[in-house]
Parts: sequence; C-alpha cells; structure tokens
Amino acid sequence: MRSSLEHHTTVGELGEAGILQLLHTSYQRLTSGEGVIGPGDDAAVIPAPGGNFVIATDAMNEGHHFLRDWPSGITDNGYSTGWKLAAQNLSDMNAMGAVTSSVSVALAMPTTTPAAWVFHFGRGIANACHWLGAPQTVISGGDLTRANTLATAITATANLVADPVLRSASENVAGFQLIHTGNVGMSHAGFMVASQGDHSQLGRDELQALRLFLRPRPPLDQGPQVAGIVSAMMDVSDSIYTDADRLAAANNLYAHIDPDWVARRAARLQPIADRYEADATQWVLTGGEDYGLLAVLNPERDVPAGWQVIGQLTHEPQERPKITGWDHF
Amino acid sequence: MRSSLEHHTTVGELGEAGILQLLHTSYQRLTSGEGVIGPGDDAAVIPAPGGNFVIATDAMNEGHHFLRDWPSGITDNGYSTGWKLAAQNLSDMNAMGAVTSSVSVALAMPTTTPAAWVFHFGRGIANACHWLGAPQTVISGGDLTRANTLATAITATANLVADPVLRSASENVAGFQLIHTGNVGMSHAGFMVASQGDHSQLGRDELQALRLFLRPRPPLDQGPQVAGIVSAMMDVSDSIYTDADRLAAANNLYAHIDPDWVARRAARLQPIADRYEADATQWVLTGGEDYGLLAVLNPERDVPAGWQVIGQLTHEPQERPKITGWDHF
Repeated sequence: MRSSLEHHTTVGELGEAGILQLLHTSYQRLTSGEGVIGPGDDAAVIPAPGGNFVIATDAMNEGHHFLRDWPSGITDNGYSTGWKLAAQNLSDMNAMGAVTSSVSVALAMPTTTPAAWVFHFGRGIANACHWLGAPQTVISGGDLTRANTLATAITATANLVADPVLRSASENVAGFQLIHTGNVGMSHAGFMVASQGDHSQLGRDELQALRLFLRPRPPLDQGPQVAGIVSAMMDVSDSIYTDADRLAAANNLYAHIDPDWVARRAARLQPIADRYEADATQWVLTGGEDYGLLAVLNPERDVPAGWQVIGQLTHEPQERPKITGWDHF
Repeated sequence: MRSSLEHHTTVGELGEAGILQLLHTSYQRLTSGEGVIGPGDDAAVIPAPGGNFVIATDAMNEGHHFLRDWPSGITDNGYSTGWKLAAQNLSDMNAMGAVTSSVSVALAMPTTTPAAWVFHFGRGIANACHWLGAPQTVISGGDLTRANTLATAITATANLVADPVLRSASENVAGFQLIHTGNVGMSHAGFMVASQGDHSQLGRDELQALRLFLRPRPPLDQGPQVAGIVSAMMDVSDSIYTDADRLAAANNLYAHIDPDWVARRAARLQPIADRYEADATQWVLTGGEDYGLLAVLNPERDVPAGWQVIGQLTHEPQERPKITGWDHF
C-alpha cells in the first residue's frame, strides 16, 4: 500500500474498493467496540445502553474550511483535515455532556485526489478520536462519492452519562457564573500563522498556535465530568462573544464577560499578535474554532477543576465595542 | 418567505440564519417525535428504546449524482434531489429490517445557490420520509457550509424490530431462495428518459420511469416486516447482478438469477427501451438506484406477500454474459 502511495496514485486509479481498503487501514488506530456490527453491511448497529443517543453533523470543504497549501508555505497532507473534522464533531458531543460512541464519514472528492490524502485524512480522524480521549469511538462507515471539489462531512453519536446538558437551563440562571475550559484565541492566532506567517522561521509559540488551529484539542473529558453540575453548556466554535451571547439568549439573559479574564488570556497571545500587528484581545473575544466549553454554574457551587470563571449572566446587556460575528454564509 | 424566493434570492444574500429558517419551514411535513431534543442545541438526543440503533450515511453531489437541468430539458428545483437523498438513506435502514428514527443533513453550497433550491431540497427530504412510510422520522439537524459546488450528505438512524438482518446469514444458506421486492430496471429507464428523452413528448410509461428515477420508492414497510423471516438481506442500489453477487459472496456462495424472472421484468420495460434502441434485459440486470430489497429465504418458508423468487444461492457460479458493475470511482 505504502509503495503505491509513494507513486502519486489518485483515487480515480485506485477505484472504490481500493479507497475503502486504504481507509480501513488508516482507521486502525481505533478498534471496533463490543456489540458493534459494521461497517461492511448496509448499515452499522451501535449500542445505546441508555435507551437514547446524541447525534450531530459537521462538514468541512476545501477552499472554505481547509486548504492543502497555506499561503505561509505550510501544507497539510490530509491528516489535519481529518483531525479537525473529527475534533469539532466530538466537541458537539462534549457540549452535551456525552461520550462519543461512533462517527460516520462522508467523503466527496475529484478522481484526481491523491490516494495519500485520503489515507492521511482517515488517520487524522482515527488519531483525533484516540488522542483526544475517545478511543472507544467506532468508525461506523460512511460514503465515498465523486464530486468536483473535496467536501467532507462527519456525524458523531454519543451516550449520555447524565441528563443532556442543553443551552437552555431548566432553572432561573440570572446571576449565575459563566465558566470556561479549553483554549481561547489560540486557533485564530494559528490561522494568522498559517495565512501570513513565514513557515521557515516560526517561533515556538507560533508553532503551538498553528498546531492548535490545524488540530484543535477540545477537552473531551470535561463535558461528561460537569454534566449534572452545570446548569447549561455549549462548545465555543464561533467565538467567546458570539457563543456566550447565544448561551445567554437561550436563557433570556445577557452575557457579561469579565474584562480582566480577557486581558489575562490576551496577554498570553500578545507576543504572537505583535508579530502580525494584531490585537490579541480581538482574538480572544472573536476568534473561533478553539472548541473549549462554556457553561453556566450556580455561584454556590465550587468551580470545577480546570475551569475558569469568565463572567456571568445578567438582566442588562454589557457595554461592548461593536463585534462582527461569524456567519457561515 | 415565498415572495423572496420568487425574486431569485441566493443563499449568500439570505445568510445562515435565513437559510436555517427556510429549511425549518421546508421540513414542516415532519413533526418532532416524542422524547426528542433538538435541533437547535449543540446536538440532538434521539430515543433508542432497544438499547442500540442502526446508522448509515449517503452523499449526492451535483454533476455526479444529480443535475438541476437534464439534457432532455427536464429540470429539478431541488425537491427530487432531497427526496432521492433521503430515499436511498432510508433504504439502508430498510435493508437492516429497521424503522428510521432520524436523519441529519449536511448541505455544502456556493453562495450563489438559489434559496428556492434549498427550500425545495428540504421539502423533498421531508416528503420522502412522509410519503415513503416513515413519517415518524425526526430531522435531528445537520450542518450548512460553503463550498465551490453543491454537495449533500445525509445520515439516518433507525430502530430494530428484531435482530438486524445482515448480508451474511448465521446459518448455511446454500440452496436457499433469492427473493426480491420493489422496482427493478425502472430507475435506469428513467435515467435514459432524463438524459436522452424529449421532455415535450414523453409517453405515460416514460413519465413513470422518470419519476421513479428522480424520486425512487424503496418499499420501507417490507424490511421490518421480513426481519426474523429471511436469513440475510440488502437493498439493491447498484444492480441486481452486482448486489446479488455481493449477498452471495457474503455467504461464500454464488448467485443464480432466474432468466425467466429477468425476461418477465424486462418485458415491462421493453416498450420504453425500444424508443431508446436499448435492451431492457440489461436495464433489469445492471441498472441501479431502484432501492428494492434482495433477501435470502429458506425454501421451506412461504414467500412473503409482495416478494418474488428471483433465483437461488448455489455452490457453482452462474454462466453469464460479461457485465460491468458500477464503481463509484
């Protein structure tokens, strides 16, 4: 297999059976779970011992959500794309307080796509599940199709360890704390590096940001851990401001973000921001794709280990500079 | 909403929130099931009362799996694409003997895509679920993304009514009957009409074939009904020959297809085939996308109502003319 990959084989030359075999090999970081049927049949059967399951879908398309060649000279052989696709999807499971059970992968691609890209894409998915703390994840199957451009989609399922943690709390949460765990602004810093950096002379901090942009690390252990403790939760995929406002709006309240917390988090990123003549405060407040968790906590409870209080839910809107949120269209 | 659709609004003009509202409206043929959370949160929660669930993904991409304008002058406003995407995915659930519980939809599109296309695409999904006999299906959410070309993917989940019906039987099925229910060759006939017909002068039979090509009708009541009766099952998505061979191979046997059955089914399509100087026997044997069911039945059992015996599983390969199967690459 390796020798054929070295000879610039395309998926068109490999054919469907060859690509499936390649993907199967690439997935081998993950082993099939107990009680699971498939892939290989018309569909897979996945255990849902709690009598229900959580499900969400995410998509990433070339030219819009990923590139193979970044302006900085940084390249992705497919591994980072697979990793990021899985990571953002598992982050949705995390946000419900659930433990991922399976992922199903749709991959649409031109016949000219290098087979090696598919192999590394599959490796990225399997390794993200493994290293982010979800090695129990089964790759239940998916679909391989032809398309004019590379388009990927993934659907994760998960099992709940407690009641699902929704955005809307079942109690009055006015005055409750907003707490956060995970990276913030880091992915945006990495995006700047990938877009505008010089790949031949990146600092250690730039490399770290780049890595977290290309291969984000949602804290998958935290969601299930705080289920039953927090009153509401979501993951931060778009930005602290946008997502805190969504969480607040789901409870008919406003989000107040503590400027001191913002300043502390921005201070860590400012050395990178300086190199790009940018403002790290903006990165912290409006940068997306870090996939941390944002939750609502009763102030009478202890803040869980690894979380920070970043603000609170209030009846009055916070005075803020005008921020433009991310719209996928 | 309707008036804006009439003014050639694009999804780029509408923005993400507008598209979501449009899709929500288009889905209204289906109502949210009991015990279901979502869409609207990070993920949906779907009941799986049996302690497990069935899952499969399908994709369709413009230019490869669907067109908006066919060479014959026939057009699709998006409805048929949504219908077909859902129908083929629900057919996989049917093939496992399962009853669909949810679908999740990924839609990647250029900003220039007409908003009306998205609306009718959503209507097509909801109406396929409703009219094919799966009105209990919940549209659990999905993902809207930008892409250079229209790419769609859908993931269905389903509940089992008995043990899952796999391709590989748990007993020795040598000498068992191959039985089939559903259309055969019809979709290929419709493809000929869409590709080479003259839309202004189609016969009644051509219109029927065209309709079944654009909006296939998998017999969703049959899969769960024969679960526990048949020994193995799959849906016929690629062709009778290809899929019967797969079903046989999964049991280390060969498929023998009864030429008399083929002749009877071909006779129904030959009037259309004559108009395209084609051989209806080829359509029956190698045409795909009809989404009937193919199952293995113990000859001591009664053939279920609505099914036909089309051959048997044997130790010796059947002598056949050379057939080229469908490879997705």
